[in-house]
Formats: sequence, structure tokens, C-alpha cells
Amino acid sequence: MKLYDCTSAPSPRRVRIFLAEKGLVIPTVQVNLRAGYQLSSAFRDINPDCTVPVLELDNGIRIADTIAICSFLEEHQQQPQLFGNSPEERAVVTEWERRSERNGFHAVTEAFRNSAPGLKGRALTGPVDYDQIPALAERGRARVLRFFQSMDARLSQHEFVAGPRFTIADITVFVTIDFAGRIKLAVSEELVHLRRWYDCVVARPSSKA
Amino acid sequence: MKLYDCTSAPSPRRVRIFLAEKGLVIPTVQVNLRAGYQLSSAFRDINPDCTVPVLELDNGIRIADTIAICSFLEEHQQQPQLFGNSPEERAVVTEWERRSERNGFHAVTEAFRNSAPGLKGRALTGPVDYDQIPALAERGRARVLRFFQSMDARLSQHEFVAGPRFTIADITVFVTIDFAGRIKLAVSEELVHLRRWYDCVVARPSSKA
Repeated sequence: MKLYDCTSAPSPRRVRIFLAEKGLVIPTVQVNLRAGYQLSSAFRDINPDCTVPVLELDNGIRIADTIAICSFLEEHQQQPQLFGNSPEERAVVTEWERRSERNGFHAVTEAFRNSAPGLKGRALTGPVDYDQIPALAERGRARVLRFFQSMDARLSQHEFVAGPRFTIADITVFVTIDFAGRIKLAVSEELVHLRRWYDCVVARPSSKA
Repeated sequence: MKLYDCTSAPSPRRVRIFLAEKGLVIPTVQVNLRAGYQLSSAFRDINPDCTVPVLELDNGIRIADTIAICSFLEEHQQQPQLFGNSPEERAVVTEWERRSERNGFHAVTEAFRNSAPGLKGRALTGPVDYDQIPALAERGRARVLRFFQSMDARLSQHEFVAGPRFTIADITVFVTIDFAGRIKLAVSEELVHLRRWYDCVVARPSSKA
């Protein structure tokens, strides 16, 4: 296996943390997003979506989606189980992972890509150029603050995002919070439950990935 | 089990088609989205996200996410397998399902919710009101047309979205195309592969769900 990666980008970081939690080491190929290498014809042959991460299997199959990669790796090496241990737990983990991606990760992405000077004309990833929409950047920021509040409420009642154990939902929320630093948003001091949880997750060795 | 549903809404329709393909029948509770019942305090107790579908299990656990519900049902009744038959196939199905949701389903949602007169101030689902952004509606329409083109290219080489068999990825694309009718976009006649595939999917009994 081989992972197309970019150390500065949040999506492949979700996979890197997942790999670290599993204790898996996979060779990586760095794709320089700042230099626009994802839009080169060489990389389009690898992934027409022009995004990382991409996992290339030994049989040549390429998987170009963060969650598709992680669920494949979960089957490849089951322990520790990061998608849940039973049908009910897997449902709850999937629900919280998707809610966190939708309301958190995507909101930061919206705010970041619609405001960063270096991303003018590149408001969405992918092969097509779309103009930035300033109102969308503003809405994204409001949504991120709201997401932090809702996660604080959730974590006032549960040790981890999806319940009593660390799962892929925690990875998504953790990467989202760090990614929010790019739009200069941080978890405020009064969100004590979210901060308690963050301190616990950042202390895990996988957080360095 | 019990499904909180709304017959006129696209997200619960994905679950209804999934159930029909499995041959499963589950009692439903209709939530009148047009009357705003999803925002009532009674429904907020069921799902604070104020969305359908929600699957309520016999032990009281509620799953409030389309894909979390479908993957739970896949474990509940494995045949016919709609998420793939092997780790590699499951990875490809997940990749295409998520790509179709991101580039297709979400694009229609963006265009629809940011332009429909009845959704002023309700540009996003959920408990918080957000103003419509006209530029986002316009961008959504452009993205939907691009999505149709990309699916036509995909289906020129594969019988179904994720490969040789009908999967949950086909359900997402099928519901997306019907949903696009609400923003008056249809698959144009020159997209012969996408139209061939649509005719095949609409002929399945599950399409009536």
C-alpha cells in the first residue's frame, strides 16, 4: 500500500492519525498542494478529483476518499476498533463522525477556502475553479463557533465524541479544531468540556501525525 | 424499529429505497417538514438536529443520519449487499457514495435551499436559521450540471455507479437526479450513459419508495 499525502493538509491528517492509532506504517508520497501539484496532469491520472488523501493498494486499486480509506484500513487491521464494536456502536460512531464532518470540518473548509487570499478562484477543491463567496466564509465562521458549543454540550455527557471510547469521530473533531486555527478560531475558555477532551486527545501520540 | 420519515423529502427517500431493495418493511412516523414540525420541541427531543430520517431501535437508541441508518440496516440484513461484498469493493462503494453525496446531493441541496422562496432564512437544515446566499444557489446549479457530466463519463465505463452491481451509491445518485427536479434541472439528452443507467434504476420496484 502507498498513501498520497500532504503533511500540511487536514484531510490526509485524518488518515495519518487513524494509521498511528492502528500502529500501521505505510509509505507516503507527498503531494505539494501549495505548488498546485494536485492539478497537474500526472496527479489527475492518479485522482481526477485532484485531492489527497489517496490510498493505492498493491493490486493498483486507488481509494480517493478519507472515510473510504479509513474503513478499508479498519477491515485490514481490526484492532483497535475505531468504527465501533457492535452494529449499534458502529451506527452511533458513523452518525457522530458524519455530523462532525458536516457541521465542523466542512464549516471550517467553507470559511477557509472562501476567504484565504491564496485560494482566490479555488473556493472548492477539485478540477473546476469556483469563485470565493465572502458571505459563505462569514457563515462558515458562525457555524464553526456553533459547532464548538454543540461539541462542548456533547462532551459534558460523554468521555469521547461517540461515547466511552476513542473512535474515528474523535479524529474528525480533533483535526477540525486544529484546522480552525487557519481561520483564527479557537475553542474559548468557557467550553470546559471540549477543552478537557482536547487536552486528552492531544496527549495521545497519534496527535503528532 | 421505527423510521421517522417524510415522504416528500430526499434524505429519507434514500433510506426508503434502501429498505425496499432489502425487502424490509419498518413502521414509519411521518414528520411534516412543510409545517415545520421538525423544529417543534417534541421533535427536538427525538433529534436535536431537526432532520429526518431518524431510525429508532427497539432498545430506544436513535440514529439520525442517512448513511449511519443504511449501514446499520446492512448489518441487520446482509442480503442483498448494498455496500459491497469484499473490503476492496466496500472501499470503492463508500468512495463513490461519498463523492456522489458531496458533488451531487449536496450541490442540489445548496441550490434548492438557497433559492426556494419558502426557505428564506432556512438555507441550512437544523435548529439555527441562516440566510439564503444567492451566489451559493447559482454555484450549486453549476455544480449539479458538472456532476451530471461526470456521472455520464463514469457510467460510460461501468454498468452501475460503483461497478458491476447496484449499490447504495446508485441510490444516492438516483435520489439526487430526482431531487434536481425541484431546481428545474434535468439530465440532458446527450448524456446517454447517465440516461441509460437512470432508465434501468427507475425500472426497479424500489424506485417507487
